[in-house]
Amino acid sequence: MNEKTLLSLAYGAAFTAGERAVSFADLEGLLPSFRSGDAWLRAGAAEGREGFGWLNLPRRNVDDIQTLARWLTTRESVVQIGIGGSALGNLMLHGALLPPYRNELPKAKRGGPRFFMSDNVDPIDNRAIWELIDPESTAVVVVSKSGSTAETASNFLFFWEKLRDTLGEAAARERIVVVTDKEKGILRPFVDETGCKSLILPEDVGGRFSVLSCVGLLSAWALGIDCKTLLSGAAAMDGALGRAGSVLENPAWVMAGLFYLHMKKGRNMNVLMPYADPLERFCEWFAQLWGESIGKDGQGSTPVRALGAIDQHSQIQLYTSGPDDKCYTILTVRSAAASLGQKDIALPAAPEKAFEKLSYLYGKSMDELRNFEAGATAAALSKGGRPVLSLSIPVLDAYRLGGLIQFYEYVTGMMGHLMQVNPFDQPGVEQGKNYTYGLMGRAGFEAQAREVETLSAKINERTASLAG
Amino acid sequence: MNEKTLLSLAYGAAFTAGERAVSFADLEGLLPSFRSGDAWLRAGAAEGREGFGWLNLPRRNVDDIQTLARWLTTRESVVQIGIGGSALGNLMLHGALLPPYRNELPKAKRGGPRFFMSDNVDPIDNRAIWELIDPESTAVVVVSKSGSTAETASNFLFFWEKLRDTLGEAAARERIVVVTDKEKGILRPFVDETGCKSLILPEDVGGRFSVLSCVGLLSAWALGIDCKTLLSGAAAMDGALGRAGSVLENPAWVMAGLFYLHMKKGRNMNVLMPYADPLERFCEWFAQLWGESIGKDGQGSTPVRALGAIDQHSQIQLYTSGPDDKCYTILTVRSAAASLGQKDIALPAAPEKAFEKLSYLYGKSMDELRNFEAGATAAALSKGGRPVLSLSIPVLDAYRLGGLIQFYEYVTGMMGHLMQVNPFDQPGVEQGKNYTYGLMGRAGFEAQAREVETLSAKINERTASLAG
Repeated sequence: MNEKTLLSLAYGAAFTAGERAVSFADLEGLLPSFRSGDAWLRAGAAEGREGFGWLNLPRRNVDDIQTLARWLTTRESVVQIGIGGSALGNLMLHGALLPPYRNELPKAKRGGPRFFMSDNVDPIDNRAIWELIDPESTAVVVVSKSGSTAETASNFLFFWEKLRDTLGEAAARERIVVVTDKEKGILRPFVDETGCKSLILPEDVGGRFSVLSCVGLLSAWALGIDCKTLLSGAAAMDGALGRAGSVLENPAWVMAGLFYLHMKKGRNMNVLMPYADPLERFCEWFAQLWGESIGKDGQGSTPVRALGAIDQHSQIQLYTSGPDDKCYTILTVRSAAASLGQKDIALPAAPEKAFEKLSYLYGKSMDELRNFEAGATAAALSKGGRPVLSLSIPVLDAYRLGGLIQFYEYVTGMMGHLMQVNPFDQPGVEQGKNYTYGLMGRAGFEAQAREVETLSAKINERTASLAG
Repeated sequence: MNEKTLLSLAYGAAFTAGERAVSFADLEGLLPSFRSGDAWLRAGAAEGREGFGWLNLPRRNVDDIQTLARWLTTRESVVQIGIGGSALGNLMLHGALLPPYRNELPKAKRGGPRFFMSDNVDPIDNRAIWELIDPESTAVVVVSKSGSTAETASNFLFFWEKLRDTLGEAAARERIVVVTDKEKGILRPFVDETGCKSLILPEDVGGRFSVLSCVGLLSAWALGIDCKTLLSGAAAMDGALGRAGSVLENPAWVMAGLFYLHMKKGRNMNVLMPYADPLERFCEWFAQLWGESIGKDGQGSTPVRALGAIDQHSQIQLYTSGPDDKCYTILTVRSAAASLGQKDIALPAAPEKAFEKLSYLYGKSMDELRNFEAGATAAALSKGGRPVLSLSIPVLDAYRLGGLIQFYEYVTGMMGHLMQVNPFDQPGVEQGKNYTYGLMGRAGFEAQAREVETLSAKINERTASLAG
C-alpha cells in the first residue's frame, strides 16, 4: 500500500476443497463473463439506460448541491425525511467520516448543524426530534423519487404541519428542501406550488445506488464532509477498475466471482465484517445494495451485517463452528485513528498487582489490538475451512470511502450479470406496499385489501397466547 | 389480548408444503422432546448447574443492585465498559424502555445520568466519550467475568489511567464499579486491592443469558427503568411457560419447534423483524443469544437482524423473491406510542393540491400505519410461500419486555435441546482469542503466534490492489 492505494484484497484463503470446492481455476473460468459484464455496465452507463447512471455519478456537476449545502450549513439543525435508499447512504457517509456522538458535541467542535434522520414512521421518534430542534433555525430535507412512499409521506405531513403551525406558511416554506424527480411524483408539484428549494434526483439512478448523487451528498456536504474528494475517490476507483485487465488484477472481479461461486455451492450468506466502528452503517448500506439488487427470481445471497471486534463476542461461535454456509469479508482500516486526524491510544501500564496478567497489553495501541483481532478472526475462519476475503483500506478518508462505495456498487452490478438477474429493479417490493394501501383503505386497492385480509386470517388461524 | 397478556403468537402461516414441507403434525410429533427439554431446563436450574441459572434470575434478591443503582442515579454520566454479553443486554434494555435521543435531552427531561457504552476497542470512540464527560461526576462501570477480555481490559486501562491522572487515585477509585466473578479472574483481586465498589456476577449464568442479573439491571435501574416490574414480567413468563401444557398452548414450544423443523429442511436463517424502533437493539441481543447458543458442531441457524418498516425498503425484495431459506418472525407492539406514556400521532390533512393523492393517510395514525405495514409484510411473505410467525405484545413496557426476554431465552434453551447441542457453552470463541494473544506477544501463546502467522501468510498469498 502507498499513498495512492484505494484498497487491497487478499484472497488466498477464499478457496475451498471437498464436495463444495471452489478453486482458483473456477475463478479464472469466469473471465469471459467478467469482460462481458464490464462491457454491459459501461455501455448501459454510456447510453443512459435506467439504473446504470451510478457509473457516471463521480463525474457529474455538483455545483447546485454545493450551493444548497452551503445554506444548510448555516442552520442549527437539519432533519432529513427519507427511508431505504433515501436514508441509508446518508447515515453511512456521516457514520464513516464524522466524529462519533456528533450531535452531543458543543457547536464549536461540531462545526455545522446537528442532524436527525426521520426514516421509520414512529410517533415517539418523530416527536422526540421535533422537541429537540428549534423550528426557526432548522431545515427539513425530504428525499423521495415519487413522494408517495407511505413512511416518508407520513413523516413529511407531520413536520410540514408542525412547521406551518409554528412559523406560518411562508417561513415554513423557506425551511423546506425537496429532493425528488424532475417532473414525476407528487413532490415536484409541491415545489411548484409552494416555491420551496429543491434538487433533482437523477432519473437513471436507483435509490440504493444514489448515495453519490444529491441524495447522499447534500447532507454530507452540509455537515462538513469533503464531497469533492469523495467523488474524486469514486472516480479514481472507476478508472482503476477500467484499467484492471485480468481476474488476478481486478479485486472487484475477484470478489464478485468468489461471492458467485460460493453462492452456487450453497453458501447462501455473505458476511461483511468491518473492524472499524465508523463502518457499522456501511454494512447497512451494503445490505440494501446487495439484498435488493440480487435477491430475485428465487436466487440471491443474504447480506449479513457484522462488526468486529464486537461480533467476536456474539457471532464468531456460529461463524467458526456452525454450518459452512457463508462467505466472509473481513474489512480493516490500517490506520483507523488517523482517519479523523487523531492519534491512536497507547495503553498504559497499570501499577495494580491484579493487572499483571494484562502486561501483554501495556504499550500496545488500540488500533494495533483491533487489527490483530481482525487477523486472528480471519485466521480462525480459514483454519475452520471457511472461505474468507481480507479487504483493507489504508485510512478511512473521503477519498477511500468514495472508492469503496464505487467498488461495492460495481461488485453488485457484476454479481447481477453473473447471476443473469437485473440488479437495478425491485419488483418484489410492490406487493407489501400494495397490501398496505389496501389495509389503509386507499382508493383503487380494494382487491389487495381483500387478498391481505384472507392471508391475515390464515396467519391468525392458529394462535397461542400467554398471560401473567 | 387483555391487560395481563404477555404475548401472543399467530402461526397459521408458519407451515410449508412441497418438497421441504413442515406440517402441524411434524410440530405435534415433537411433544415428547418439548416435555423432556422443559424437564431438563428446570432440573438444571433447580440443581444449580452451570449455564442454567437464568431460569432463576427473575426471583433472585436484587437489593444490592438497587442500592448501587441509587448511587449511580446521582452521577451526571455513567460509562459502562464491557462487550458481548456485558453490553448487548444493557443496550437492549435502554433502547426498549428509555426515550430516544436520551443523552441529548436536557437533564430535567432525562431524569438520570447520561450513558455511554465503551464496548469496541476504538481509540476515536473512547476518546470522544472521555471528552464528553466530566470525570468528577462520572461513574465507570466495568463488567467482565474474567476481567481478561482484551477489549474490556484495554478500555478499562484507558479510563482507569485517565481517572487517576485527573482526580488522583483515591477519588478515581470511588468512581469505579466492578461487576465480576465472586473470586475468579483479575477484577476481583483489583476490587480487594483498591476497595472499589463491586457486584458479583452469578456463577451459573452465561454472559448472553445474564441481562436480568446485575449485568443488565444496574445501568437500567440507574437510568430509570423499573427493574422490579421487569423481573416480575420475567417471572410471570416463567410461570406461564410452566403452566402451558401442550404444543398448541405453549408459544415457546411452537416457536422452538418451528425454528427447528424449518432449519432441518434447509432454512438456515432465522429472521427477527420487529416493527418498533425501540426493539432494534433487541435483535442484536437475540442475535448473540441465538447464534452463540446453537451455532456449534457444524449445526446452527443464523440470526438475521431486521427492522420494520425500514427493511421493507432494503431486505423485502430478497425476503419475498429470493431463495426460500429463512424462517421469519414479525414482531409487533399493538400500542407502541403508549409504551412511553405518549400519544400516537394522527396525520394531518394537507391543504396543498399536490398532496391529494396522500389523502388516504389523512387522519390515520403512525402506529396504525406501521402495524398495517407489519401485517402487509407478513401477508406478502405468506403469499410467497415463506414460513412466517407473527408475534405481538400489547405494549412495550418493563413487564412485557421482561416476559419477552425470558421467552426468547427459553426458546433458545429448548432449541439446543432439540438439536442436542449444549446451548450454554461457546468453545468456538477461544481460537480467535488465542490467535490474538499470539499476535500480541502474550507469554505462553507462542505456538498460536506461529499458527496464526502461517494462516495469515496463506490469506496473503494472493493479493490484488487498486491505486488511484
